[in-house]
Amino acid sequence: MNIGIIGCGYWGPNLVRNFSILDDVRVLAVSDLRTERLDFISRRFPNIKTVTTDCNEILRNKKVDAVVIATPVSTHFPLGMEALANGKHLLLEKPMTATSEQAEVLIEEAERRNLVLMVDHTFIYTGAVRKIKELVSSGEIGELYYFDSVRVNLGLFQHDVNVVWDLAAHDVSIMDHLIERPPVSISATGVAHFDRDIENMAYIAARYDGNFIGHIHVNWLAPVKIRKTLICGSKKMIVYDDVEPSEKIKVYDKGVDYLKNREEVYDILVQYRTGNMMAPHIDLTEALNRISREFVDAVTENRKPLTDGQAGYRVVRILEAANSSIKQGGKVVKL
Amino acid sequence: MNIGIIGCGYWGPNLVRNFSILDDVRVLAVSDLRTERLDFISRRFPNIKTVTTDCNEILRNKKVDAVVIATPVSTHFPLGMEALANGKHLLLEKPMTATSEQAEVLIEEAERRNLVLMVDHTFIYTGAVRKIKELVSSGEIGELYYFDSVRVNLGLFQHDVNVVWDLAAHDVSIMDHLIERPPVSISATGVAHFDRDIENMAYIAARYDGNFIGHIHVNWLAPVKIRKTLICGSKKMIVYDDVEPSEKIKVYDKGVDYLKNREEVYDILVQYRTGNMMAPHIDLTEALNRISREFVDAVTENRKPLTDGQAGYRVVRILEAANSSIKQGGKVVKL
Amino acid sequence: MNIGIIGCGYWGPNLVRNFSILDDVRVLAVSDLRTERLDFISRRFPNIKTVTTDCNEILRNKKVDAVVIATPVSTHFPLGMEALANGKHLLLEKPMTATSEQAEVLIEEAERRNLVLMVDHTFIYTGAVRKIKELVSSGEIGELYYFDSVRVNLGLFQHDVNVVWDLAAHDVSIMDHLIERPPVSISATGVAHFDRDIENMAYIAARYDGNFIGHIHVNWLAPVKIRKTLICGSKKMIVYDDVEPSEKIKVYDKGVDYLKNREEVYDILVQYRTGNMMAPHIDLTEALNRISREFVDAVTENRKPLTDGQAGYRVVRILEAANSSIKQGGKVVKL
Amino acid sequence: MNIGIIGCGYWGPNLVRNFSILDDVRVLAVSDLRTERLDFISRRFPNIKTVTTDCNEILRNKKVDAVVIATPVSTHFPLGMEALANGKHLLLEKPMTATSEQAEVLIEEAERRNLVLMVDHTFIYTGAVRKIKELVSSGEIGELYYFDSVRVNLGLFQHDVNVVWDLAAHDVSIMDHLIERPPVSISATGVAHFDRDIENMAYIAARYDGNFIGHIHVNWLAPVKIRKTLICGSKKMIVYDDVEPSEKIKVYDKGVDYLKNREEVYDILVQYRTGNMMAPHIDLTEALNRISREFVDAVTENRKPLTDGQAGYRVVRILEAANSSIKQGGKVVKL
Repeated sequence: MNIGIIGCGYWGPNLVRNFSILDDVRVLAVSDLRTERLDFISRRFPNIKTVTTDCNEILRNKKVDAVVIATPVSTHFPLGMEALANGKHLLLEKPMTATSEQAEVLIEEAERRNLVLMVDHTFIYTGAVRKIKELVSSGEIGELYYFDSVRVNLGLFQHDVNVVWDLAAHDVSIMDHLIERPPVSISATGVAHFDRDIENMAYIAARYDGNFIGHIHVNWLAPVKIRKTLICGSKKMIVYDDVEPSEKIKVYDKGVDYLKNREEVYDILVQYRTGNMMAPHIDLTEALNRISREFVDAVTENRKPLTDGQAGYRVVRILEAANSSIKQGGKVVKL
Repeated sequence: MNIGIIGCGYWGPNLVRNFSILDDVRVLAVSDLRTERLDFISRRFPNIKTVTTDCNEILRNKKVDAVVIATPVSTHFPLGMEALANGKHLLLEKPMTATSEQAEVLIEEAERRNLVLMVDHTFIYTGAVRKIKELVSSGEIGELYYFDSVRVNLGLFQHDVNVVWDLAAHDVSIMDHLIERPPVSISATGVAHFDRDIENMAYIAARYDGNFIGHIHVNWLAPVKIRKTLICGSKKMIVYDDVEPSEKIKVYDKGVDYLKNREEVYDILVQYRTGNMMAPHIDLTEALNRISREFVDAVTENRKPLTDGQAGYRVVRILEAANSSIKQGGKVVKL
Repeated sequence: MNIGIIGCGYWGPNLVRNFSILDDVRVLAVSDLRTERLDFISRRFPNIKTVTTDCNEILRNKKVDAVVIATPVSTHFPLGMEALANGKHLLLEKPMTATSEQAEVLIEEAERRNLVLMVDHTFIYTGAVRKIKELVSSGEIGELYYFDSVRVNLGLFQHDVNVVWDLAAHDVSIMDHLIERPPVSISATGVAHFDRDIENMAYIAARYDGNFIGHIHVNWLAPVKIRKTLICGSKKMIVYDDVEPSEKIKVYDKGVDYLKNREEVYDILVQYRTGNMMAPHIDLTEALNRISREFVDAVTENRKPLTDGQAGYRVVRILEAANSSIKQGGKVVKL
Repeated sequence: MNIGIIGCGYWGPNLVRNFSILDDVRVLAVSDLRTERLDFISRRFPNIKTVTTDCNEILRNKKVDAVVIATPVSTHFPLGMEALANGKHLLLEKPMTATSEQAEVLIEEAERRNLVLMVDHTFIYTGAVRKIKELVSSGEIGELYYFDSVRVNLGLFQHDVNVVWDLAAHDVSIMDHLIERPPVSISATGVAHFDRDIENMAYIAARYDGNFIGHIHVNWLAPVKIRKTLICGSKKMIVYDDVEPSEKIKVYDKGVDYLKNREEVYDILVQYRTGNMMAPHIDLTEALNRISREFVDAVTENRKPLTDGQAGYRVVRILEAANSSIKQGGKVVKL
């Protein structure tokens, strides 16, 4: 299987490296508009034949079976459509597209042409999130009550997208992966302290049917690095701290038991549970290693990948609603 | 000066103790509806003359100069009005009242009668918040960008008030004390996972004129205790972690310098500053010690206390708006 | 059962309080040389009949069944002997005596008179150490490899005893409780930075038969408070951090498997194990509560208490050897 | 200036990379006994001309001005002597040699031939240790009281050297750099839990003239990674935690003031100081970058480097004494 990779900024070389080490795959061509990035790639990966500033040399290359697009999000849709039109399987960087409408068109096109469409929701493939998913799916956590994620630090200020598109895509993809249903409404608040229109911090609240709630705080302007997610269920609670080098996940056998007295409805008894805490061993395999494998397998087995176009669409839908709410001063946006 | 204290639940004995140690003050009387609480007080403070289940013995006692009310919030207004009507100076537990309208009436009544009206916003009197206020007032932090506070743990579920009235009152009072102006709108999201109507977790976003934003996350259902506030300014940033036993405040000489290129407005240069971090020594005097002193001094000097009725009103106003927003599914509430 | 308590400094009031709450026990008399300490006791515990500066009023009081001695260590022996001579059961504060010889004489005397002799090795009765003991006894940790304890902070400088007698008594008692056999030799290094002869920091190495080793670092002159003990076994490893408010014990399913290749003895294969980490729920009952109960039960049941005279002797023996080594510049002292 | 590097195990490639980026330096040749290591070097650094299994091609190469030796410590002496004999300047990996006698011979030989002899004491060149040295040298810390270092984790078990040679070399080099005088005696305790003779954990106490003491705990068999050094002075205290990603150094304005009452010598007054804590910004330049620069500069300027042969000798002397003490069961070894 021959792969072409379009876009070699920060993330591109990692994609090249991870696809290169697969036995049944060859990275045939890489493109980027910047020649210095291409020089860098040529030096590190001397076996790549085509290294070009013209992405059409990849998109229209007959030998290329699948295309990976790691360019700025605004170009995902046109490049992705062109790739599909040329019969290439497609792996898109997150976020999938700049609008949910574009995502829908891509999904439809890929289906029509029976091509694999996958989105690189990196965190879904980390050992930590895989373990959390396992704990949730097994029922060990119980019914989910909330998902609360904080992702802040003194970060690079992007000039094309705001902090929601840049950082919240990660948290939204994890939340969507765990709760497996879309929210009913979103409200979000953001502030652009410097650039007009490019918010550098934002809070996103996602309301769901039932009592589940999701909340995300993303921020490029914080003095300390915090990557902390609380996932609370009726049976156990998880703290996922991605800054921790080893004990990233802590599962607390803690919670509240609410006993309703039958005869007197208003007389509610609360009991607190506090038991052991367990930090499960986390598989530290690089996420991109699993992503490249999943993409190739999905193509080979002609099946949907774990993070397919629909997953990409759901994430974009929430980010889009969050931005819409921010622009309207926090107005509740129904989905 | 003779003090009477109404309400001796969790907080009451601390009030009795702190007023008792003042040289120029005598705690004359204490009331509570529960005789076992009164027994407890009698044993620990054998010098208190009147210990009664009837608060009128305090409110109408000619010898009592000032009354402290530490009862459930729903009773603050009627008891407070009665105290003022009897010419007593008044210290109310936080939150000041159940509605902002009640707060306004109390303020007016106290002013009309030239009586001191103070609210026990405890945190304002801690060494940590006093140090933060000093740093902000001195200009060392620069223009304030945001206030972000998280106050979560596996907490006691209250049965009369939700988590906003219970916990957010602390954060709102600190935020109000630092920013010194009211927000223009509030939106909040909360969930009642057990009791109908009694939210056990909530997110509150407060928008202000200019670019300042405040955000508060309060939660009774979290596996770990977090008390972390980020206060970010144009010059420095503060992390206030109240769980830390000693280094509660860390001041980071970190931030972003935004340089606008004169000729091309859109060409913005970002420079990151990263300098030293400093954890100032914090005075660990008990906050209630300073509160009792401030109340007595305000009475003696016939002046407004640091946390006067207006401060109490502003906090209630924000809590009220937050609850209103929660009940309307996150709708933006203008102030 | 009637108890008399001699010595009411820092620890004495805790002893009074914990013995007072037992149903079958009465604290009959308390003595201290300082009248202000006695006043304090009288106010807090108005039911205690005899409060005196003369300890003989306790030692020779016919109604007193048992005596608790919480005076400076140099007085433990004469007071303890007098108590036994008067037929009183005896609970001594740690360290048991100023010399191991004194401990031996007390043990013999108590045995001859069939009286209970117990030492207040407080930490043995904490939930944390009880849990560690349980883990070690059950075999879950495997064969013990080492015990490493650090107990440092900016502490009160004692004027009668050095840091070894003050702090290391805790660690030595825990180590002795876990390993259940005496070391074969001790070497220790200490420095007196201020007072001649009163070391404010010390390192103690205890060698045992087999490959087990114990090491203790105690220090009154450290900028941060550290209370961290590593207990390493062939199967699992424990980190006991007493500064942690809740997760005091962490059990790591980590270690090394050494496989000796049969044919080539020198070819050793190392395999690293890294599994889950578990922080067991710790019972937070106050240690002194369990100590007072154990003492009373031992008297009632006419049996040896958990921390009997022999345990006290073993601890004093190690402290004595450590001090001897320190005075000889680190010389190895055989036991 | 042409450099040859002998030994390309774990550390070698870092040496190659850091010497390669210097403008005035060319890495001419690299040797290693393992061809797979050489292949790896050839691929990553295609510009290196000579890549060989025979180190003599470097040692006897006329074009080579300076040699870097990163082989197992037992070979440092013969290879280093050969390099000097061929007129090459010499950078040796730490520890400098297997015995202090060898170090003395190398120093003498280099001096006789007027060649630069430097030892790669890596930590001395880190931003953290440079900052500590600056604080100590400036007098800000006051007179040094002690140096206490813990370097433990579940580490690779070496098969040729014990944990003292492997890990303690780091701590000893830092201690020597700060205190700038040799200890008068060493005592050490170590245990080999698996391999006979290869200790996997050790405690080293170093006594100095005056009241200064150094202590080092190194351990390959610990469940958690600890890299914590306490450096205590009469004015301030430093905690250096190398596991912290950013705030590696914390300077505490804490301590004890001892006031001797003139008339009564034994009446000593203690006063505790507790002030601010400051975490200075640390320069994160890679240490090896500074090391390669220092070596080249020392050669060019014909001067002694910061970590010269004498520094290497002093470190080996202490490690040697520590091992001697371990083998004699903790006996005090005079220096």
